[in-house]
Amino acid sequence: MKAREMGITVGALEAGPRDSIADVAGVRVGHATIDAELHKTGVTVILPCEDDPFLRKLTAASFVLNGFGKTQGLVQVDELGALETPIALTGTLNVGLVHDALVEHMLLRAEAGGYPLNSVNPVVCECNDGALNWSRERAVGRKEVFAAIESASADFAEGDVGCGKGLTCHGLKGGVGSASRVFGIGAEEFTVGALVQANHGRLGDLAIGGRAVGREIEARLREDEPDKGSCIVVFATDLPLTARQLRRVIKRAGVGLARLGSFWGHGSGDIFLGFTTANRQEPEAPFQSLRSLREDLLDLPFRAAAECAEEAVLNALLSAGSVTGWSGTTRRALREYLE
Amino acid sequence: MKAREMGITVGALEAGPRDSIADVAGVRVGHATIDAELHKTGVTVILPCEDDPFLRKLTAASFVLNGFGKTQGLVQVDELGALETPIALTGTLNVGLVHDALVEHMLLRAEAGGYPLNSVNPVVCECNDGALNWSRERAVGRKEVFAAIESASADFAEGDVGCGKGLTCHGLKGGVGSASRVFGIGAEEFTVGALVQANHGRLGDLAIGGRAVGREIEARLREDEPDKGSCIVVFATDLPLTARQLRRVIKRAGVGLARLGSFWGHGSGDIFLGFTTANRQEPEAPFQSLRSLREDLLDLPFRAAAECAEEAVLNALLSAGSVTGWSGTTRRALREYLE
Amino acid sequence: MKAREMGITVGALEAGPRDSIADVAGVRVGHATIDAELHKTGVTVILPCEDDPFLRKLTAASFVLNGFGKTQGLVQVDELGALETPIALTGTLNVGLVHDALVEHMLLRAEAGGYPLNSVNPVVCECNDGALNWSRERAVGRKEVFAAIESASADFAEGDVGCGKGLTCHGLKGGVGSASRVFGIGAEEFTVGALVQANHGRLGDLAIGGRAVGREIEARLREDEPDKGSCIVVFATDLPLTARQLRRVIKRAGVGLARLGSFWGHGSGDIFLGFTTANRQEPEAPFQSLRSLREDLLDLPFRAAAECAEEAVLNALLSAGSVTGWSGTTRRALREYLE
Amino acid sequence: MKAREMGITVGALEAGPRDSIADVAGVRVGHATIDAELHKTGVTVILPCEDDPFLRKLTAASFVLNGFGKTQGLVQVDELGALETPIALTGTLNVGLVHDALVEHMLLRAEAGGYPLNSVNPVVCECNDGALNWSRERAVGRKEVFAAIESASADFAEGDVGCGKGLTCHGLKGGVGSASRVFGIGAEEFTVGALVQANHGRLGDLAIGGRAVGREIEARLREDEPDKGSCIVVFATDLPLTARQLRRVIKRAGVGLARLGSFWGHGSGDIFLGFTTANRQEPEAPFQSLRSLREDLLDLPFRAAAECAEEAVLNALLSAGSVTGWSGTTRRALREYLE
Repeated sequence: MKAREMGITVGALEAGPRDSIADVAGVRVGHATIDAELHKTGVTVILPCEDDPFLRKLTAASFVLNGFGKTQGLVQVDELGALETPIALTGTLNVGLVHDALVEHMLLRAEAGGYPLNSVNPVVCECNDGALNWSRERAVGRKEVFAAIESASADFAEGDVGCGKGLTCHGLKGGVGSASRVFGIGAEEFTVGALVQANHGRLGDLAIGGRAVGREIEARLREDEPDKGSCIVVFATDLPLTARQLRRVIKRAGVGLARLGSFWGHGSGDIFLGFTTANRQEPEAPFQSLRSLREDLLDLPFRAAAECAEEAVLNALLSAGSVTGWSGTTRRALREYLE
Repeated sequence: MKAREMGITVGALEAGPRDSIADVAGVRVGHATIDAELHKTGVTVILPCEDDPFLRKLTAASFVLNGFGKTQGLVQVDELGALETPIALTGTLNVGLVHDALVEHMLLRAEAGGYPLNSVNPVVCECNDGALNWSRERAVGRKEVFAAIESASADFAEGDVGCGKGLTCHGLKGGVGSASRVFGIGAEEFTVGALVQANHGRLGDLAIGGRAVGREIEARLREDEPDKGSCIVVFATDLPLTARQLRRVIKRAGVGLARLGSFWGHGSGDIFLGFTTANRQEPEAPFQSLRSLREDLLDLPFRAAAECAEEAVLNALLSAGSVTGWSGTTRRALREYLE
Repeated sequence: MKAREMGITVGALEAGPRDSIADVAGVRVGHATIDAELHKTGVTVILPCEDDPFLRKLTAASFVLNGFGKTQGLVQVDELGALETPIALTGTLNVGLVHDALVEHMLLRAEAGGYPLNSVNPVVCECNDGALNWSRERAVGRKEVFAAIESASADFAEGDVGCGKGLTCHGLKGGVGSASRVFGIGAEEFTVGALVQANHGRLGDLAIGGRAVGREIEARLREDEPDKGSCIVVFATDLPLTARQLRRVIKRAGVGLARLGSFWGHGSGDIFLGFTTANRQEPEAPFQSLRSLREDLLDLPFRAAAECAEEAVLNALLSAGSVTGWSGTTRRALREYLE
Repeated sequence: MKAREMGITVGALEAGPRDSIADVAGVRVGHATIDAELHKTGVTVILPCEDDPFLRKLTAASFVLNGFGKTQGLVQVDELGALETPIALTGTLNVGLVHDALVEHMLLRAEAGGYPLNSVNPVVCECNDGALNWSRERAVGRKEVFAAIESASADFAEGDVGCGKGLTCHGLKGGVGSASRVFGIGAEEFTVGALVQANHGRLGDLAIGGRAVGREIEARLREDEPDKGSCIVVFATDLPLTARQLRRVIKRAGVGLARLGSFWGHGSGDIFLGFTTANRQEPEAPFQSLRSLREDLLDLPFRAAAECAEEAVLNALLSAGSVTGWSGTTRRALREYLE
């Protein structure tokens, strides 16, 4: 159940056919979800392209709005402006094992592709699902990562699935959400899509379309808690941008979070990542041909990024069902309160 | 006329007695305004302390949210975490002359203080007032800067004064605005205050308290223009923070801008600066004693910064009267539309 | 065998009693080395303090000189200016498993300490030892990390041990090296120490004390290869510094690398990390007392950092013995050529 | 008198025909020098191209190695990756007036070109020449800037001219220096050139080709002073690079400074800037075509940048004659000591 289907419109631009990151051609998303008594967790994997990202790296950028987080791989993404693996999202304490699983995935891929590989930079993002998930046992490993990759598709579930199983967002059940925007520049049409791992925000601050929904729910729930989670936003686009331009675009995810009520709390690792399927690096030629957008035309993708981030978080909230965790704590679905 | 006086409340925290940056003890603001046929411009100066900032530098930090701007002095502020001069705000093409005037002010101050000075780092921020002001003639110089410093007071005007005379914000008359928040930590009370030079945003995007005021006005005005201006936000506080912590706090100005409808447009130099009157550098002792806030208590100043920035822009819009510029272009006051 | 013992002096300042990072009180280093037919690898762990770093975090900073690397944990170190775990150094493809082992170490420590833990930021640095080590099998895991921690001591080996087993530096056998500098400020004495994981540089560029040693050796070896490795430099100090100041200090590692002949090659992840045992974060009090060094006195620690980095790399080269790897490739010890 | 002419070779690559930044086609340099009793100062202007840089902006980047400096214009260069004016270098207290003069130059140019201009980002770099120059009177203004631009040529003087008149480098007479390197990639030949404003370093630390020349001179001069100046390095190239790649290249100036003996002292504003004459921004087309270098081929331009910076500083030292300043202080020429 997406915001649009409930008649909630975010911003001014049009969504793509799936209203998801997979509206960018070639992008697929897979989940592995663990729903056991103690474990409410999982992993979500974004495949950025159909061919091997290591051989033809994608132009990429990151922006750390608030760095209380353990996301891996950003040092190299920032230096080289390139993504060379799928992106995995999981729970905080799982990042080591998920990193190792992505290494193995890439080694197998290299073996299949017949090229040597002894250095690779997996990107692993995370939110803390410890409120619902008995996270110390690090339940997500190789098996789950491989299953998520295996199942990746342009049509994927949102809400309390994959890395979203154990998340809390604005005091309610958080999770995975996605949205997209399409727009024309010259004669061409382009797409910006976002996928969020939403685990941030206080209930009392939640605002939908300017309405203080969080305070209304809070009055019924009679509880509130400090903002302790994080929010990861991954963007894909087919716009031809340089890494510098891409960084400017993805930064606007902060606008979307702010409009829904977040003030980017201390405990929130608000970390954004983006890649474009245009401008891939060719392994052979000494010089590469790139296209970039004329700088003053960036307002449109900026707006698209802000809208995608806001709507993707909203879609996470609207898609997620209530979940009760290992200690008996329950995070309730937003939709229970919207009738 | 401030938002509060009109019954508009921004956020949850209480404002200080003046609801301005001067609620931080020692901070004063002065304007020099030029209101001539061709020139709608001026300069605003923030004096960070009553004694000489060069001798006892203030802990300071900057954050560049969108760097399409000419603000001067940030390289050194970032490296040394210190502010050593007043902060001047003016029109884009005036920054050189205003910089030179601040140099002269500091040289005279050093002479009066009996210490040698041959290096000083003035901080000069700017917005482009060229839509109303015939800016090529650089009408603001030594005389205006000295007059602004001379007139500085804890009670100062907002709206179309000083550096705000020629500004445009969300398609309406922009200008200078200020706001503050007070809160307790332990047994102590602290203040965060902001002063904005608001020249950013599209009319159609303006939202007040979640209401799409901009679209309503746009329907009556029948015009809109791209976002071409900038927004400078200067924060003062008496909270004991390190430069690193201060940078985290001032970054939250972006939340306030987003909630009023900005998506931090390409052409907008969204640049934030902050200083604390606690933790001043002592010139003699080899080791300095500092106090810092326990990191997980920063949520309160983060929220305060976000609220101050939002309300300060709103105060700029509400305080400014309509102004017609050199070419006949008029920027209308928001309050004409709010009845 | 250290540079000093061979009569090679680096810089002007005095070394501490051990001429190592462990001259900073409380700092210990442990290795686990794997020396098998296929595997020349290992892990080195730096314990920053004797008590639990999670409970009383150490002020810390990072600086990425060249970011072609996979070091983990820097996002949070940069945001919060704090180190809360031991620092592990290993081979590139092992970082995931070593990260997970550090998570487990911290969970056990929390259990022993009786406090809950579901979020922790391990710092794991890496160099690529794939030239000598069959790295795809990721031979370093929980067992090795725990053994390295167990064996940590202020007296530790340098050269081809721990994470240094499989490294190449300036075409010769690289490895782990360490050095320190002591100096007085006022009546107090302070120490800066460095530990390097040296895997960078071309042979022909190696210079010792200004002498083009690399070209001389190259003439005998008749081979050279591009710079493909990395150099990690970890600094410890007992100087009271803020995170901002610490970042300035550790940046000077780049001076040391340049003087030995590196130009910070594209393929070299030149990543620096530092912590101070002064200015630890107290978990209870809302306000923390810090000391900082008067800014203009930083030249002494800057010089110390540059000298430590240069000498530590030299000590790595001088301490390492020749090693032959899985494919028959041999990296020869520098000392074979210095007679 | 350049290093090469004295038989001193820096590095391994070949210099271009002029061994200066003007080996990059289209780049010209002009000086205006003030040599009066009280004033030993001036301005140096680098024209990056023959046509108007505002209309077809050049891809550009900056890197602040040590930010104790007042360089203007970097905020926008970093955000937009573009240079749109000549680059001026002058004494610290003159930056405001020189900024204003560049604004006027650009306004006149726009008028001549028939396009409107009310926002422009001049780049003004500076070093403190107060030891020899009575800097408080800000002797450099519009007249000097316009004269420097007027006189710009591919053949220009080095040493104690223009902005170099009053500088001190490694305790000796500093100034302006330049150098270049040429190299082939594929079938094409490329040039990297540097121009330095050298005002940094301690005498005792100066090393030429690994020889501790500074200590030898110090023994004769019997004096030393702390490092209080700065070093600006401006790079030009015709290599097709993105702004991100350019930033990686110019960073290597730090290698050159370190090899000559600097440890990037606290008081030294070590600030690097670079532009490429390839990849200019076209004002009309919505999409721009760029070329970039395959990332792993950057080692050659990295090495070139390091060598250029080192040799350019050396050329400044070797070209400058002794100068006695307003207070009777003399900075002696290096060449007096090299016989």
